[in-house]
Amino acid sequence: MTRDELYARILDKRSFLCVGLDSDVRKIDKDQAGFNRRIIDATAQYTVAYKPNLAFYEEHGTQGWEAFVYTCEYIREHYPDIFIIADAKRGDIGNTSEMYARAFFDEGLVDAVTLSPYMGRDTVEPFLKYDDKWAVILALTSNPSAADFETLQLANGKRLYEQVLETSATWGTPDNTMYVVGATQASELRGIRKIVPDHFLLVPGVGKQGGSLRDVAEYGMNNRCGLLVNSSREIIYAGNGANFAKASADKAHELQQEMDALLSQYL
Amino acid sequence: MTRDELYARILDKRSFLCVGLDSDVRKIDKDQAGFNRRIIDATAQYTVAYKPNLAFYEEHGTQGWEAFVYTCEYIREHYPDIFIIADAKRGDIGNTSEMYARAFFDEGLVDAVTLSPYMGRDTVEPFLKYDDKWAVILALTSNPSAADFETLQLANGKRLYEQVLETSATWGTPDNTMYVVGATQASELRGIRKIVPDHFLLVPGVGKQGGSLRDVAEYGMNNRCGLLVNSSREIIYAGNGANFAKASADKAHELQQEMDALLSQYL
Repeated sequence: MTRDELYARILDKRSFLCVGLDSDVRKIDKDQAGFNRRIIDATAQYTVAYKPNLAFYEEHGTQGWEAFVYTCEYIREHYPDIFIIADAKRGDIGNTSEMYARAFFDEGLVDAVTLSPYMGRDTVEPFLKYDDKWAVILALTSNPSAADFETLQLANGKRLYEQVLETSATWGTPDNTMYVVGATQASELRGIRKIVPDHFLLVPGVGKQGGSLRDVAEYGMNNRCGLLVNSSREIIYAGNGANFAKASADKAHELQQEMDALLSQYL
Repeated sequence: MTRDELYARILDKRSFLCVGLDSDVRKIDKDQAGFNRRIIDATAQYTVAYKPNLAFYEEHGTQGWEAFVYTCEYIREHYPDIFIIADAKRGDIGNTSEMYARAFFDEGLVDAVTLSPYMGRDTVEPFLKYDDKWAVILALTSNPSAADFETLQLANGKRLYEQVLETSATWGTPDNTMYVVGATQASELRGIRKIVPDHFLLVPGVGKQGGSLRDVAEYGMNNRCGLLVNSSREIIYAGNGANFAKASADKAHELQQEMDALLSQYL
């Protein structure tokens, strides 16, 4: 999917919501594929992207990988206008990274893969060779230990994550690169927008991990939205029992309505 | 496997060789599981560790994951004294990281998993909760773009990878943490040994990626060896045709003999 297409869908749906499919079998008491299917059917109208988190599938080995593939194919078949991000946080060197790119892109399974930048350009480059596919690079994450390394001050006065943004922005373009920026540091979004004004930002951490949607829009939105805001647990575990999917739909709808208002205000 | 056990096996086999199972179906012209089985049978006597690289299996989806699991189980059954490292370079936050730890450790599939430190302590901690299992943290890698971020100078005068070593060494102990240190910078091993004198170092890059085994031993060996030196392509693609496994055995044997001499000299 191109940046133009993604932007068009955001305007169509009046939403920049990404639903994180961190489907934990200990919480859902049923199979992942079936759970995801019901969550997707319930939330797709409010959503521009889904983000299955690979860890939750790999935990179950072959069966988990099948559930992941099934989920992507289900979205492709029933909701072909939705952007899919494999939240894999891969990060390896050239020939290995190429293998990962093939695994995720060759069959058209997903539109984007999250990547860890630690090993540098070699990690990301193979993902940039595909037309209309995206590398989503970790910059500033929302977990407590992001401070261990991501925010370290460099000798040149920048923070590590700022250097990651600046350097990696030269590898690709805003048409094939996005950044993960945690919403617990919404005020830092202002500084980030100075470095990468045009890139899409994938913002996790609205919801259970804290972070205000309004702050994210105020500091992070650019003139083509430039935001995908992710919510995982807050949506997929909104309810339980037979009506869990309805509760997820309600929560997604609530967020979509907030987003509609913010798009009107800031775009 | 404990550090004592690993050290005992190094002394038994007079080897600190790790064979990287980066088994690329485009090069092997047969199934991954069968290829790995023959490589393992041919090289196990010279080897203390195997390191399947997950990317090469994930590329093939469900079938690839099965080949990975089969490979680990085959080693466990036939060569139970061998250390297995899942080269996954995972790096995600708390609850996700826990899922990955379960995926790799709960069934006893492997002894160790490689991890990217970018997101900090949250990434590594779930892997340290398992007895006799290991987190193998990326510090200084051997790829050209390691210079993009890993060797950046911090405001405190250290390089990023030095800070990664210093900080992450406080999360665990030399009994559950190892570091990936690329052999193309063997002279930097001296500085690394000042920061982490007791930890095992997993050194890729001897062979095709360059790097001298003698330098690695000279600068990197500690009083309990403290080294696992990996060779992937140089061993597994040493030959082709019907006798490929014999060529791999010869190459592994050659490296083992060099290692025997270096153990005598430096230990």
